[in-house]
This record gives sequence, C-alpha cells and structure tokens, in this order.
Amino acid sequence: MAKCPYIGQIKLIQMETPLIDLESLRPLFAPKTIAIVGASSKPGKIGAAPLSFLQRGGFSGEIYPITRSSTEVAGLKAYSSIADVDGPIDMAIFAVPAPEIPGAFAECAAKGVRSAVMFTSGFAEVGEGGAQQQRQLVEAARSAKLRLLGPNCLGIANYAEGVFASFSPFFSGASRRSGNMALVSQSGAFGGYAAMAAQDQGIAFSYWMTTGNEADVDLADGLAFLAQDPQTRVILAYMEGCRNGPKLCRALEMCRSARKPVVMLKVGRTEIGAAAASSHTASLAGADNIYGAIFAQYDVYRADSIDEWFDVGRAAALGRFPRSNRIALVTASGGVGVFMADEAVSKGLDVEALGEAAQSEIRSLISFAGTRNPIDVTGQATADISLFEKSINAVAASDQYASFVGFHAGVGRSPAAGGRLQAAWANLLSHHPDCVVAVSGASSAELDRSYEQAGCLAFRDPGRAVRAVAALNRFRDSFDRRTARPPANAARQTLPPGVLSETRSLQALKEAGIPVVRHRIVQSAEEAVSAAREFGYPVVLKIVSPDILHKSDIGGVALALGDNAQVDRAFHQIADNARSAAPDARIDGCLVAPMLFGGVETILGVQRDPVFGPMVMFGLGGIFVDVFQDVSFRAAPFDEAEARRMIEETKAATILRGVRGAPPADIAALVRALARLSEFAAAHSDQISSIDINPFVVQAEGKGGCALDAVIVGLSEQPHDRAV
Amino acid sequence: MAKCPYIGQIKLIQMETPLIDLESLRPLFAPKTIAIVGASSKPGKIGAAPLSFLQRGGFSGEIYPITRSSTEVAGLKAYSSIADVDGPIDMAIFAVPAPEIPGAFAECAAKGVRSAVMFTSGFAEVGEGGAQQQRQLVEAARSAKLRLLGPNCLGIANYAEGVFASFSPFFSGASRRSGNMALVSQSGAFGGYAAMAAQDQGIAFSYWMTTGNEADVDLADGLAFLAQDPQTRVILAYMEGCRNGPKLCRALEMCRSARKPVVMLKVGRTEIGAAAASSHTASLAGADNIYGAIFAQYDVYRADSIDEWFDVGRAAALGRFPRSNRIALVTASGGVGVFMADEAVSKGLDVEALGEAAQSEIRSLISFAGTRNPIDVTGQATADISLFEKSINAVAASDQYASFVGFHAGVGRSPAAGGRLQAAWANLLSHHPDCVVAVSGASSAELDRSYEQAGCLAFRDPGRAVRAVAALNRFRDSFDRRTARPPANAARQTLPPGVLSETRSLQALKEAGIPVVRHRIVQSAEEAVSAAREFGYPVVLKIVSPDILHKSDIGGVALALGDNAQVDRAFHQIADNARSAAPDARIDGCLVAPMLFGGVETILGVQRDPVFGPMVMFGLGGIFVDVFQDVSFRAAPFDEAEARRMIEETKAATILRGVRGAPPADIAALVRALARLSEFAAAHSDQISSIDINPFVVQAEGKGGCALDAVIVGLSEQPHDRAV
Repeated sequence: MAKCPYIGQIKLIQMETPLIDLESLRPLFAPKTIAIVGASSKPGKIGAAPLSFLQRGGFSGEIYPITRSSTEVAGLKAYSSIADVDGPIDMAIFAVPAPEIPGAFAECAAKGVRSAVMFTSGFAEVGEGGAQQQRQLVEAARSAKLRLLGPNCLGIANYAEGVFASFSPFFSGASRRSGNMALVSQSGAFGGYAAMAAQDQGIAFSYWMTTGNEADVDLADGLAFLAQDPQTRVILAYMEGCRNGPKLCRALEMCRSARKPVVMLKVGRTEIGAAAASSHTASLAGADNIYGAIFAQYDVYRADSIDEWFDVGRAAALGRFPRSNRIALVTASGGVGVFMADEAVSKGLDVEALGEAAQSEIRSLISFAGTRNPIDVTGQATADISLFEKSINAVAASDQYASFVGFHAGVGRSPAAGGRLQAAWANLLSHHPDCVVAVSGASSAELDRSYEQAGCLAFRDPGRAVRAVAALNRFRDSFDRRTARPPANAARQTLPPGVLSETRSLQALKEAGIPVVRHRIVQSAEEAVSAAREFGYPVVLKIVSPDILHKSDIGGVALALGDNAQVDRAFHQIADNARSAAPDARIDGCLVAPMLFGGVETILGVQRDPVFGPMVMFGLGGIFVDVFQDVSFRAAPFDEAEARRMIEETKAATILRGVRGAPPADIAALVRALARLSEFAAAHSDQISSIDINPFVVQAEGKGGCALDAVIVGLSEQPHDRAV
Repeated sequence: MAKCPYIGQIKLIQMETPLIDLESLRPLFAPKTIAIVGASSKPGKIGAAPLSFLQRGGFSGEIYPITRSSTEVAGLKAYSSIADVDGPIDMAIFAVPAPEIPGAFAECAAKGVRSAVMFTSGFAEVGEGGAQQQRQLVEAARSAKLRLLGPNCLGIANYAEGVFASFSPFFSGASRRSGNMALVSQSGAFGGYAAMAAQDQGIAFSYWMTTGNEADVDLADGLAFLAQDPQTRVILAYMEGCRNGPKLCRALEMCRSARKPVVMLKVGRTEIGAAAASSHTASLAGADNIYGAIFAQYDVYRADSIDEWFDVGRAAALGRFPRSNRIALVTASGGVGVFMADEAVSKGLDVEALGEAAQSEIRSLISFAGTRNPIDVTGQATADISLFEKSINAVAASDQYASFVGFHAGVGRSPAAGGRLQAAWANLLSHHPDCVVAVSGASSAELDRSYEQAGCLAFRDPGRAVRAVAALNRFRDSFDRRTARPPANAARQTLPPGVLSETRSLQALKEAGIPVVRHRIVQSAEEAVSAAREFGYPVVLKIVSPDILHKSDIGGVALALGDNAQVDRAFHQIADNARSAAPDARIDGCLVAPMLFGGVETILGVQRDPVFGPMVMFGLGGIFVDVFQDVSFRAAPFDEAEARRMIEETKAATILRGVRGAPPADIAALVRALARLSEFAAAHSDQISSIDINPFVVQAEGKGGCALDAVIVGLSEQPHDRAV
C-alpha cells in the first residue's frame, strides 16, 4: 500500500528465472486449507478481516486460526503455532507485524505450508533494511517450495470457492457472485478501488489478486495461472512496472494462446508522470515506449482510461469475438450515427454499406430512413417500434455484418418499446450466434443487466460501445498469432566487446542474413582504385578505425568520387586527415563502397533493455525520429509478419508505399532485414549491447535494400539480467 | 428528426446575413404568452405534449390552445384561430401536419406573433419540394419579424420559467429543476437523449434547445442568446455542420467575451464518417479540419466523447476557473497518483513539486508518504483519516496550487471517513475560494451531489477528474483573448481574376507587408546578367508566364547559377524551352532572384472555404504536409498571438526552434508574415480564391524570412457566400 515498489528501481534489481510453475501456484489460487497467522475476532484488527470474509464468503475448506491469545477464534478452534495443526496447509495468511514475520514464516516452511499471503508492509518498499529482510523471506520460501504473495499486498480472492484472503474493507460488503473476468493489480489500493468500481457496474470476477512487492509471485504468475483457468475469459491487469521481462512475455504469450484477452492499465506513460512518483527519473525515462512495444507485440490491449479498461474487459468477458471487421450501426439519431461511424472508422472497423435489397426494404418501411450504414431509423421508428424491429431484422438478414451497434436514444428505457427492442436484438443473436451486439443510449442498471443476460453488451455512450466492439476485433486478429523463437540453426558468431569497426559490423550483419552494401577494405590508393573500378563509379571512401567514431568530423569520409584520380586523391587526403586528427588511432584501412542514389533511408537499431533484453527499433532517418518520434520497437526475436506490423505502426509505412510520385519501396526486403536483425540480436543477446544500422536504404520494389553503415557495440561484461 | 439536414449540403445553400438580433430572440427563449396551434388534450397527440408539459412545468404566462375541434382544451379556453386571441402572443407552437402549416403560419404573421416553434417535418430535409416550402416560410417570417425555430425540431425549454415548448416524451417525466448549463443541439433525437443522460447524472439545465432544419434560428443564435443569459454559465453544443460561418464565429466570440465556455460535440470527424451519412461525400471531405481550426481559434472545447462533453460541461458549470496551471494530486494510491500525473502532464498541467517544508510536514505524519506531488498518503491515511485531512491541509497551506484533484479509492464511500474527507476539501475551498477541487474514487449519486453542493467536482474515474480540471485551465486562458479584425488601414489592392503570375503574386504580397525574395523581371540575357550582378551570385532564373504553371516540368527553371556566363546561357535555354514546350504561351519575361541557402522551408497558404471564407494554412513543406498532415488552419484575419498559437499547434514548431544542432529560426518573422497574410486575405476576401506561398523560408533568428515563390488565384466571379 505504501510507495510503488517498481518506479525507478528497475535497473537496480536482478532478474529472476522466468520459469512459471503453474502447479506450485494452485494452492495460492485454490487453497483447500487455510491458516491465518495472527487471526483475531476483534473487528478492526487486520487478522479479523480475512477470517470473517472466508466465513461469510462460504469457503468450504478448513480454516485454522493461529494465535497465542486465545484457544478459539470466531467459533473455530485456534492454534498457538502452525506446527500444531494436523494435516497439510495450502495457504497461510500473515496478518502479523513485520518483527514477528521471520519466526512465523520459518514455522510455515517447516510445516510444509504451500503458499503464503503476506499483507505486512515494511519490506523492500521502505529501503535497504526491508529489502534485505525480504530477500531472506524469498530464500526461505524457495527452499521450502512455498509460494509467497506479497509482502505489502492486499491479498487474493477466488470468488467461486469463497476464498477471500484479503484485509481490504471492500470485501466486508462485497458481492460474492463469481464471474468470468479476473483482475490482477500490482497496487493494493488500486485493486481495492477497482473491485468496488467493478461491482458498481455489475461486473463479477473469477479471481482478484494484488501482488504488492512481488518478492516471489508476480503479475506474470497471475496472468499465466489465469490463462489456463477455465472460469476466466478475460484478464484486467494493472501494472506499474516489471522486473522480469522474459517472464512477463512468456505469461502474455500463454494468455494469447489460450485466447484470453489481457486488458492493461499501465501507469507512467509520461516521463514527468513517472518522475512525479519517483526520484529515480533517469532510470525510467522512455521506458514506457518499451512497454508499449511489448503490449503491441503480445496483443495486450492498453486502455487509455479506467472506463475503457472496464468497457473492453466487459466486452471480452462475453466470450464472443466477431468473425470480421464489418459493423452495422443502427441508430435512432442520424447525428449519433455519424458519431458512431467516426469512432468505428478511426478504430479500423469497416462500416460497409448495406446491400441494395436491404436498403430498399428499409426505405419501404421508413420513407426518410438513412439506409446506407449507419442505418438511421428516424423518429418514425421511435414512434412506431415495429419499424425499428423490422429494420434490425433487415440489417441482420443481409448477413453482411459480424457486429451490430444500436443506439436507442431514450426509446430503450420506455418499458414497452424497450422490451420489444431487446427481444429484437436477442432474436438476432439467436439466429446469428457468432455475431456481437452492443446497444447504447439512455438505460438503467437493470436494463443493462437484462441485455447482458441476453448475450448483448449494453452501454450508455454510443462511442464507448463502438470502441469496445473494435477491441473485440483486435483480439480476434490476435488469437492466431504466435511469438517467434530464434531459429535453431541461427549461426552463432563470436563478437568482441566494445565498439566494432564499420567493416566488422557490416560483416557480422551480412553473415546474419542482412544485406549490406558491397564494400572492400583497402590499404593503399592503388587498392582503392582497383576496388572502385570493380564496383563502378561513383564510390565513397571512409576511414575504418575502432578509435574513430565520428568519421565525418575529422575529414574521414569522401563521397561521390567519380573517377580513378578522385579516388587516389581522396585516399591520401583521408589518410592525412586521420593522421593529424587522431595520431594514435589504430587504422584498419579505408572502406570503398559504391555510392547509392535514391531509395528511402531508414534506421534499424537494437538496444539492450535491462528488463526485456534486445529491443529492435525501426524508423525513418533524420528529424522523423527526433521530432515526430515516428519509431516502433519490438522485443527480439520476431518473424516477418511481426516486422511488417512494426513498420505499419509508423508513418514511415506511408512513405515506403510511395508518396509524391515516388515508386513504392521494397518493403518485403525491409521486413526480411528486420526479422533477420531480430534473430541475430536474440541469438547474441549475451554479446551485444547495441546495433545501429543508419541508414538502411530501401530501394524501389523488387530492388531490395541494404545497410550502408553500421555500428555494433559488444557487451563489455556478461549481463546479469539474462534470463531466457 | 429525419435525416441530418447539414451533411453534404453546405455548398448548395446560400449564406444569410450573419447579424444576430438578440432582442428578437427573447420571445423564443422567454415567452410570456404561448399559443399552441393544433393543441389537443388527447394523450399521444403531438399537440397534447407541449400543453401538458407547460401546465406541469409551472409556466405562469398565458397559454392559448388553437383548435377547431373544441372550445376547451385541458381546462383552458380554446380558440379556433390565432386571430381570435386578444393581446400579444410571444410564441406559437406548431403541432399540425405540413399541409396545414402555410395557412396557420400566415395567420400568425398577420397577428404579429413574435416567435414560432415548428415540430413539423417534411420540409428541406425531404428534398427540393420541401425546401421550396421552407423558403416561403422563411420569407413570411422575415417580413413579419417573427423568429422561427425549426421546422423538424424538438423545440426549446426554459427551465426557470417552466417553458417546455417541446413534444419530446422525455419532458413528461423530466425533472424541472433549473441549473446553469445550457444545451443547444442541431439534432432533436440527440438533444432528447442528452437531456435524459444529463438528468441521470444529476445535471440541471437553464435552457435546452434543438434547432432542426435551422430555416431561421440556428445554433449560432442559440449560442449568442445564451452568451448574455445570466443564468447560463456554460453551453453544451451538438453540431453536424454550419451554413453561415461568419455568424457562427461572431456567436462564439460573444460566448468567449462573456466568459461562457462552449463545449462542442461535432460529428463527422472522419471522411468515411461523413460519407456514411451522405451521398455528397466530396463536398464535405476534409471540412472537419476547418471546423477544428475554428474551434481552436474561438477556444471552443471539442469533446472526443459524450462522457467528456458532460464532464467538461459539469466542471465549467461550477463557475470557477483556476488562476494557474499548477495542480496538486492527493491520492490514496501511489499508482493512481502516477496515472493522474500522466493525464495532467499530457493535458498541459504543471504537476509542480510541493515545497520542502510541506513535504517534511507530511513525512512527519506518514513515514512512507509520497510527498513530492502526487502526494501519496498511503494506506496509513486510509486507516487513520485524520492523516488524510492533515495532508490535504498541508498541501493547501503551501499556497502553490490553483487546483486539487483527490483520489480517495474506496475510502470516500465509508460514511464516517467520507464525511470527514468532504469536510476537509470544503474547508480548503472556504480558505481558498479561487481554487478548484475535484475528487474521484468509488462514490454514490448522493455523495457526488453533496460534493457538488460544497463547490467541489466529483468523479468516479480519476483520469476524467484531471481532464475536466485541465479543460477549466484552457477556458481561463481563453477568456482574455479577442479575435482580430482586419486593420482599418489595410491597403486595398485590385487583383485580377484567375491565376496571377509569380511576379504579380510576389508583388501583391510584398505590398501586403509579407517579405518576399528580392527579384527582378528581365526581358533579355543582358538584363538578366545585370540583375544577377546586382543581387550577387548564385542566382536562380525562372520563366514568368500566366500560361505556364509547372515551370520546372518544361525546363523553365535554372538554379544555382554561379557567374555571368551561366546566367547568359540559362536565359537562352529557358527561352528556347518555353518556346518549344508552349509556343502560344504569353511570356512576361524571366525572373532573376538570389539563390538562398539554409533556413526552414515552410508553406503558407490561403484557401477560400465556402462556409468560413478565407482560411490561412501553415505547415512545413514536402512530405510533412502529405504524410504527417502536420498543418494548422485559422480563419482570416488573426493577430500575431493567434499566428503563434497556430504555429505551436504543429510539430513544425519543434523544428523551427532548432533540432539536430540547427539554430533556432526567426519565428517572430514567420508570425508577422502569417498575420499579414491573414489580413491581406480578409481584406480581399471578395477577390481571392487561393494563395500558395511555397516555400516561405524562415532564416535563423534575427535574419527574417521571405517568400521564394507564390501563386495567387483571383476569384473568377463575385462570391455568393460573402456575408461579413
């Protein structure tokens, strides 16, 4: 509950193994026997809350209160020590102050308790002393094969089995109804608030979990467990940061393969937002980009607002995903129809025109109806509801659409008309069970509920209805995607630490399957001329030295050399410039390469992220990166389909397709280069700190592309964070 | 209620006078005597609704039912004709079918009725026949000085005076409580829905108005009247399109001067959205940009969603506007604090760090509090509410902030703690009456209401709370802005119709005060050389002909000419090229100008919009416009402050401030040029169709800037739409 334990500490914390052991998590999510260490029957005591929640929640397993101050708590036999309990214990809830934790925890470990929920604060979140104690707990937990949730968390709830292992006051008055949406939050305070806000909206959870300090069990464990949980259809996640990127990625992949949408609320979008919560500004600056890339890569839906988070969650909990992007908008207001069409189009939906036959049918019912799509049934249909029903039927019978959003204005709330409208939509679903229906307009909580019981989504705001349906389309697209693994036959190279020279860098990339410009390293003007004649004029000459990074600045580059004499002169000039600017530099020679014209200059890069490992960057050169931040990232490795999505995320894609009369560029060649680069980066993630290919020139379609310049920086020491 | 009468028809309809006659609108907004033409006491009849609403709404003036079928309606004496009524009539409500309208309307005109509300449909929205009838109505209304609302509208309501001149079923069960938010909607169906949705949120209106076909009274009239209405603090507007741009602008300016925020929901954002509702796609394509520019220029807040529309309206209805952008975020959850900081920063608020003294004070209360800002009071303060209160007090006492957003998680809803929190915020407001407080978290309708009674804003979603406060800051910034008028001394030039040559265009712009490149038009190679020597080398040469638009394509341009011989050769070459490519072209000569290097190439343009008149465009050259759509627009004329806002709206501003080592550009010179261009365009709006200055090169700071090339296209005929 105290300070966010993630913000700003990411670089300080070593990664752990990414292995997710689902079996070991079961006693935490579905315990049959629960001990409460520090149990109490005094209302207001932290140890009283979970006991009362478990009893009221209908938990049918054994509860063992552990306390020295009584032999009976809330009608149950109490034990002075966990060692006194007969039989196995799946979960121990710790509701004692920090100083009592080590002793009690050791008893648990000795007893063979399989999981622990620890509310207690005063660990890593308060400084190094607490962090030290927390590490000791983790060690003890690991050696006892006990999974630890917390410390400094608000616990976990399994609604179907009445497990309310929490002290959040929310659960004292909460509904116990179980649903098929799960919530995993790193923040306890937010988790409690979200549970309350969800209940206000009539949302029921399968599981609710807060992970606190994540000493052992973390958000990724929660996601992975819920991915295989049959009750859970969608997971709402709240996240502040992540310490083990590969583990998170693995969990997200498990969710995607299980067709379980993850709807994410990730805070710290802005640098100042992150800084505001932390004094460790620098360590997080820009990192939110990387989270955004991971979410894109694993098809996590990142909500911009809490409303959207719930809306999309509620939509996905229906378990229906439209088979296509084609959406019909049926509206009681022409203007709202346009508003919905705006939303639909900007979210990538296809507001396809209704077929002519169906349009005539509706026009024959309602003279001035808008029939193209949106279908505006006008005031005539709100006055005579049978026209509204018939219009819905006509649109459905066209069989063109996979989803339908209705806007009923105020009609839906009138008892007679509202019921008939609902029946019309329910009838549509019964004939088209693979379709999605969302209705909007003035409503009431009961009306919303009855729509949802009929399998429809109900919203007040028509825009929110359209956005939720758009999210379902995105999930459908994502379910069949798989994350690439580095190819088994990826040739392993041995790369030195530190900055590699341009030729060495180009060589390594070429071996990795990335096209590079033809080039030769020469030691004399004669060799330079001979290489130039072989390549054909014009050529470029560049100094090659591991000690000279900014070649142009010292006069180490000559461009557009048109004949033998120019090459000869340039070679001597460059050699002179290098000698006088950097007399001690090791010179490998001069690089000769053909000078290329035309094409689109792009930048391909790799940057080792401390959390997620090698991240591949793509963007256009120059101010496009600086001013427009028109770049995209992905974690390596990825396949060509993912490379294409990565390009499509940027405006560069428009430029590559050809603007202002330029021919389309060879996007396929760029896609291949990005995928190969990602495989190379993944296969050498223990050796590479960064790669900068600038520019990678993409020629016209069919003409390929190649790296003109590249710098690889090798890792100076073995990474501590390598986990895969 | 039927089809949107705006979409796609903009170019087809002539503009009317933009004069806004407030006095003539008073009988419509605040009638003392109302006749109902077609009155009925039969429930379900359109003529029964307004009568029953007026009676139940407590309207204290005279009501005259007009009907031939009875001598008494709902307890009131009925008249068979409006001519039979004694005394003046402020408003006539028409609830009769279209065929009966002309006769009844003529009687009203003869009687001297001052306003009419016409629900009847079947006019301009159904085609040319209806449009013709509508024009006749308008003529009759104009000559009788009768203001007409509708036809095809849902009417108007004045809550304070019980005027419910509508047939929307909503008013049968609606609350009559009057508030200080007004709603003006072009769509009746949307207006009815919005009234219902507002009531569900506890929002009360001063006025509610739907404008339907806008034969006479339009949205702009509504805005203008409400601008000077003392009860109304904020106006929610719903808009599909506008036929009289200058009138709308004038109304918006009246709202701004009266410090009445306008919150706008404008549909038709996307081309496909607009197309979906209309077959007249082309006429609207891109027009939404222009509306966006007008909204920016007049500080209209354009809401992206219906939720935001209400949120911002509700916030502005408080009537408090924070004196600065500095915001304090006080939160029961660290993570939500970060989330709020993200929102605040991205909306331009200043999440300034709390002073050291106040930080220490809070730390002394709550050991692990986040004290910088957001102020995270942690679980300690949710358990001991006095700590929450003291933290609020400490933050307020710092006197640093003009607005405060609190996030209470679930605490606010607990009866004891909730009441104390509310008292703490109310106490803050009593000591800092010029501040704004918004709270968020789990709540209830009653709790929200009691917060609003205490002068605080209450939201569930913390992000929405922050966005609403950010909107108040934008309004505060806007209140003191004024729209520029063209300077009285603007020199009027006489411009020919059609395409002006480059020299003529440059000349006109120079006279208007826009710097243009030095240039001379020459007729011979000798003159060319002499001009070049005077300017200094290098120079450029271009053919000048009204008949040759694409000079480069025919070899009519020579760049970077370095000496006399090159100029001589180029002159002859260009003349030959022109002769062979366009033997019949009229040739004015050749233009000689110095060749400029460096600087930032921008495009300044003017395009005559059929609704809003001359619109000035600014953007960077090349693909920035095509791919990034990085342009901004404003209606001419505007002042230098507005020109600066216009530049700041684009990413070009970042480039002009200097990126990648480039020096900052002379933005002040660019600002002057834009303002002069806007004055020139406004002063010649009856003569100019378009202006394209491409490029306008902005040199380094202090070095100015100038137009290198320009084309003015004069209007071929007098515009029909000129209205100012």
